[in-house]
Order: sequence, then C-alpha cells, then structure tokens
Amino acid sequence: MFSDTAVKAGVTFPKGFKAAGVKAGIKKSGNLDVAVIYSEMEAAVAGVFTQNAVAAAPVYVAKAAVEDGKARAIVANAGCANACTGEQGMEDAKRTADIAAEALGCAAGDVIVASTGVIGVNLPMEKLEKGIKDAAASLSDTGSVDAGNAIITTDTHSKACAAEVEIGGKKVRFGAIAKGSGMIQPNMATMLCFITTDAAIDSGLLQQALSEITEVTFNMISVDGDMSTNDMVTVLANGAAGNAKITQKNADYDVFYHTLKKICTGLSQRIAADGEGATKFLTVHVTGAETFEAAKTVAMSVAKSPLVKTAFFGEDPNWGRVICAVGYAGVPMTPEKTVVKFGGIPVYAHGTGAASDAEALREVMGQHDIVIDIDMGMGSAEATVWTCDFSYEYVKINGEYHT
Amino acid sequence: MFSDTAVKAGVTFPKGFKAAGVKAGIKKSGNLDVAVIYSEMEAAVAGVFTQNAVAAAPVYVAKAAVEDGKARAIVANAGCANACTGEQGMEDAKRTADIAAEALGCAAGDVIVASTGVIGVNLPMEKLEKGIKDAAASLSDTGSVDAGNAIITTDTHSKACAAEVEIGGKKVRFGAIAKGSGMIQPNMATMLCFITTDAAIDSGLLQQALSEITEVTFNMISVDGDMSTNDMVTVLANGAAGNAKITQKNADYDVFYHTLKKICTGLSQRIAADGEGATKFLTVHVTGAETFEAAKTVAMSVAKSPLVKTAFFGEDPNWGRVICAVGYAGVPMTPEKTVVKFGGIPVYAHGTGAASDAEALREVMGQHDIVIDIDMGMGSAEATVWTCDFSYEYVKINGEYHT
Repeated sequence: MFSDTAVKAGVTFPKGFKAAGVKAGIKKSGNLDVAVIYSEMEAAVAGVFTQNAVAAAPVYVAKAAVEDGKARAIVANAGCANACTGEQGMEDAKRTADIAAEALGCAAGDVIVASTGVIGVNLPMEKLEKGIKDAAASLSDTGSVDAGNAIITTDTHSKACAAEVEIGGKKVRFGAIAKGSGMIQPNMATMLCFITTDAAIDSGLLQQALSEITEVTFNMISVDGDMSTNDMVTVLANGAAGNAKITQKNADYDVFYHTLKKICTGLSQRIAADGEGATKFLTVHVTGAETFEAAKTVAMSVAKSPLVKTAFFGEDPNWGRVICAVGYAGVPMTPEKTVVKFGGIPVYAHGTGAASDAEALREVMGQHDIVIDIDMGMGSAEATVWTCDFSYEYVKINGEYHT
Repeated sequence: MFSDTAVKAGVTFPKGFKAAGVKAGIKKSGNLDVAVIYSEMEAAVAGVFTQNAVAAAPVYVAKAAVEDGKARAIVANAGCANACTGEQGMEDAKRTADIAAEALGCAAGDVIVASTGVIGVNLPMEKLEKGIKDAAASLSDTGSVDAGNAIITTDTHSKACAAEVEIGGKKVRFGAIAKGSGMIQPNMATMLCFITTDAAIDSGLLQQALSEITEVTFNMISVDGDMSTNDMVTVLANGAAGNAKITQKNADYDVFYHTLKKICTGLSQRIAADGEGATKFLTVHVTGAETFEAAKTVAMSVAKSPLVKTAFFGEDPNWGRVICAVGYAGVPMTPEKTVVKFGGIPVYAHGTGAASDAEALREVMGQHDIVIDIDMGMGSAEATVWTCDFSYEYVKINGEYHT
C-alpha cells in the first residue's frame, strides 16, 4: 500500500494527475526550483494557509483560487518567497497564475500558486515564466520526484508519500509531496504540502477534513518556534477513481478521512525529523491533561524549549529542563501528580527525580527517535507534538549571511 | 553617583548592610558558592518570585519570609537549585533558614533563602551548613563582590550596581547583586537579584514599587524563552539613611521609585547581554502599538525567535525574519503601516524592504549593541525587551552532558 514505487509516484500516484519539476535558475544552487502539478479533470480543492499577519503574496492568490472549491493545477517555486514584496509581489503572484493557466489551458482562477525561499525579494518573472512553460511541457506520470525536489529549500531531502484504499468498492489513491525544515511551528511555518487524490468528494467536506486534520498533524510540529509567511497545505481531489462522490460523513468519508490523516501524520513527523540541523526526532506525548488545548500547550512548551532541545542534542537525560518547561507552560499542573518518561523509562515522579537504570537511560538518549511521555495526572485529554533537537548545525544554517 | 567604588560595594553600599561569599564545595568548580547578606537592623522587605508551577523549595520558604514585610538576611547558594526535590527539599530549605538564623542571631522567619544551579539534586546540607557559618563569621563592608560571585552559575561575570540619591534631605543609597544567564525569560527565569537600600519605606509601598518595576524590567528580558523554577528579586530597605519613612506616593516615593527602576533596568540589560553564549546585546523597542501588552507581545515574539537571534549572530540584516516574527505574534498588525529599523536605519516600510545604505547597515550589524525599532503605526503604546543573539556557544553550554 505504501510501496516504494507508489511513494516515488507521489502526487501522480492517483489517476489523472501529472507533475514536473524544472530548473529555472531561481535557486542560487542551480537546482530544480519550479514545480507544476496538474489534474486532467477539474478537481475539488481544499487548503489551509499560514496565519501569519504578514502573509506572502502567493498565499492571497492561492486562497482566492481555493475559495470556489475547485482547481486544476498547482504551480510552486523555491528560492524566492515573494513575501514582503508589496504591490509588485501581488502582481507577480497573479501573473504567475496567468502564465500557468495559459501554458496548461485552464482558467487562472483554477491555479494555486505557492512560493518558498528568501523573503523581501521580488520574483524573477522572466526566469519563472520560462520555468513554468518548461514544466507544463514536460508534465508526466513520473514527474513527482522532480516536483518534490523543486519545492525544497534547506530540507536535506524531499518528502513524498502515497496510499491506496478501497472506498465504495473502488480503489482510491492518495499521493503527496511536502517541504519544510526551518521555521516549522504550529500553524504551519515554512511548509508546503501538496496532496492529490483521485477520490470523488464534496469540496466542503474536503475542506472540513483538511482543517480538522491539520490541527492534530501539521499544527503539532515545531522546529524552532517560527511561523512563516508562506505555508500552505492543499488537497486536490479529482474523482478519477470513480467512487460514488462522498457528500456526507458516512463510512466512505471515514476511510477517506483516516487515510488523509495518516498521510498528514507521516509527513508531519518527517518534516519535524528533518528540521534544520536536527540529529534527533523527538515525540512529546502529553497524557492525563484536562483538555486537548492544555495537553498541546504543555507539549509545545517542552518541544519549543531551547534548553530541552540542546539537552537532547547532547544526549543528556536532563528531566529537570522538561519538568521546568511543563511548569511554565501556563497550564494548571501539580508536580506531585506529574510523571515524565524518556523512552518509556520514568525519570520524574512524585515531585522529584525517579530512580532509573542509568545504563538503560543512556541507551535511550543515544537513539535517534526518542519519545518524551508526560502524564499530567489531571484528566484524560492528550496531545502529541513532533520536534527535533537543537544543534550547532541549526545555528550555522541560520547564522549564515544570506544577502 | 554610580562610581566604581560604589558598585564594588554593591549590597553593602547602603548603610547598615554587610555581606560575604565563601567556598562551601557545592559548585563542582570549587568556586565561591554561598552568599550571606545581612542588615544590622530590621528591614522592610519585598519580593517577586518565579511563576513556574514547578517552583523550587527555597522559593516557598522565601515567599513565606517576605510575607510579613520584614526581614534581616538573605542566604543564597549556587551549584544546586534544590528544585524538584520533594519533601526533603522543603526540609532542607527550612533548615537552611534555621542555620543562618542561628549563625546571625536573628529569627528564621527573617531569613530569605535562595538557590540556583542543577535541578533534581538535594542540597549537600553539611557543606552548606559550614558555608553559612563561615559566611556569617566573615561578614564585612567589602563582602559584596564575593557574595556576587557566590551566586553566579553560567554567567561570565557577576553583576553589581549602586546608586545614591537625596530623599527628604538625606543621602539614601541603593546597592544590588544579580545573576542570571540561561533560562532568562519573562517572569524571571533563573535569575537572582538582591537589592539593598538604607531608605526608610513602608513595606507595602516597597512591594508595590518592586512588582510594578519588575513588569517593565526583569520581565522584559529573554535569553532563551525558558523560565526557571528558582528566580527571585528581593529588596531589603533598612531605614539607616534616616529619611522620613516613605508611607505614601509623594515626591520622596517618586525619587525612590525611579532610582529602584534605574537599578532594575540596568541589571536587566546586563543580564540579557550576558546571556549564555551571547555575542550581541539586542534591544527590541516596539512603538505605535495599541496597548502595552500588544507591544510587549510583539517585542517578545521578535526577541524569542531563534531565526532572528541566529541572524544577528551571523550579522545578517535579515529584516524578513523580524517582520515574520511580528506577523505571527498574534497581535493585530498592518504590514503597510509597520516600519522596522536596525540601529536607526529603516529596513522595512510600506510592506516591503526599505532601500538602505548597505555599508551603513553592515556597520550597524557589526556592533555589539544593536537596537531593533519596530513602529506598528497603530497607536501610542510601547515596550522594550532586551535579549541577546543565539550562538554556537549557547548550544555548547546547554548541550553538554551535565549528570
């Protein structure tokens, strides 16, 4: 179901989708930097976007394109975020949709535009225009890998994902590509995620599902606490699978919902694990909270603490920093009721350090994937946040002079 | 007024105070680690304490000592925070006050105890007891420097401060020692600050002044967003200056208030500048906000952003990261109305980058002290937050295996 071939097919794994990624000379590295994803037939569309008050121009244009619930294509570039670019930026983002529409033979209002990269620089429109035309001309069933590579920035690798399930007796496929690395934080950060499916589903339901799922997946990752001007997650559902269109919350919807959630969860985890300079993938799992919000607040407080993140980088089982971050989260807590575990080993209980097997703990801290369990002992709500450690490399990547 | 001699005199600069710092073997380094500050007569006292739900044992004991508005002495140790130490921790903190009271010949309820250092480890009571007795025996007018050095942890140096003003025709003196470095964040972080004055002032007014001033000084610094279990700021006012006791908000109170604020401001700035691994001292000054809270939220969002902090470490005039952090602060803002300046040079205006003299900007970024001005263009409230950059050294200091 999640075979290598399917994952490689990515956004073109579902029927009726083609993709391409080309080099347009926007990235200084000369790498792939313009991606186009295209549905052969009209698709239902849903999107979630950055909540940053300083949203980039493409975000406004993409939001408008999603509004009517239908779309045909996505055009994305890396290397230039087209953020903080004023009137010129808005014109360029609109013009990007026009160029793609013309090259693809669809309406400009059905093109979702996205950008990621440096803030405050105008799009090199000539290069971008050529790139979009090249990409449109080279669309194929095998273009997802290139498209995925064309949207990454400081990511160490592109993220792709695929799934196949049965809905109403029909095989329904899902595919996705995503990027994100620094500036990853609740409410979506510099993250682009494009999901395709050949399911037939009402766009209102699609939007509802995506919005709900985003709350417990993409909004539950934190790399550095920064939220970008450019993020978006969009889903195109073109109905090519031939299932009876999902128009209500029935069994078909449940299968659809859980598959979409699985995809979003997997991508969220991989984005957190590929945080800038990350050497560890940390899962902060808070249980026994009074509400989901309280659990999330505590998990985020721990996941965002530079002191916690540097301790895990140093493989130091410093539970004091974890309980300290729980304590200042601003949520009611009782130290005596709280239990903290690293990799299943209790490290804090009854208001003080728990006697633990130092050797076993050292082994846990040496692993790449580490689960931090925090039981608040106050209720039954829980939340999971994914993050990574804080390394020298993070400072290096972000301390370099970029201009 | 703030002469070197006065600063060196620190907490003993005001009349009637003595201090000492000794080596008790609590710090692994073998450095000074137990401080005692003593007032020869009963003093009015005020204190503000960590808001972390996981407060350390000494915080509870110190809060109780401050409650009746009078105190005689402060006993503080570094090297062990006595935090997350359960029942034993509470017993040890109370016993610390008892030991000091006996050595100093005062009531245990008049002794403020404070600890800073490693979390989750019990106080070595034998060593501490000997240290307190040694310190009590060596109290002097010149002991402030040793006392200051006895309370530091990862600080690169001790912070001290002094002032002399005239109140009601009498010369009134103030002195202070402070520590803090990592874990510095609003609501006080791992920070200890002990202020002495020979002013005569009602303890209720003293508490009110300290609480108000803390909001715009110690609560406006951020090094890494972490808030500790142990912070406290206390003021002892012993009346030895002979001024008419300040019992209402008159002209005398105003002088007292402004002097105390000056001291707290200076120490806050120096604590931020001495943040772990800091190479830059950053002042984030937000103006034109609708409310103080909004201004503070925006300033903190910028001051806490690892992307902003690493950019300044790299001397990169990356205003995109600053405006991005303004945008996600969660406060209403209009990009077009917002103006950002680095060292007085506009870098962002009218929703986009401002044309600026690259050479002048490079010079600003190369300086140690840099002011980031953010005018929201929405109102007349303002706030100032002090912070530092994020360096390799921060990761090194906090990534070391401590156990």
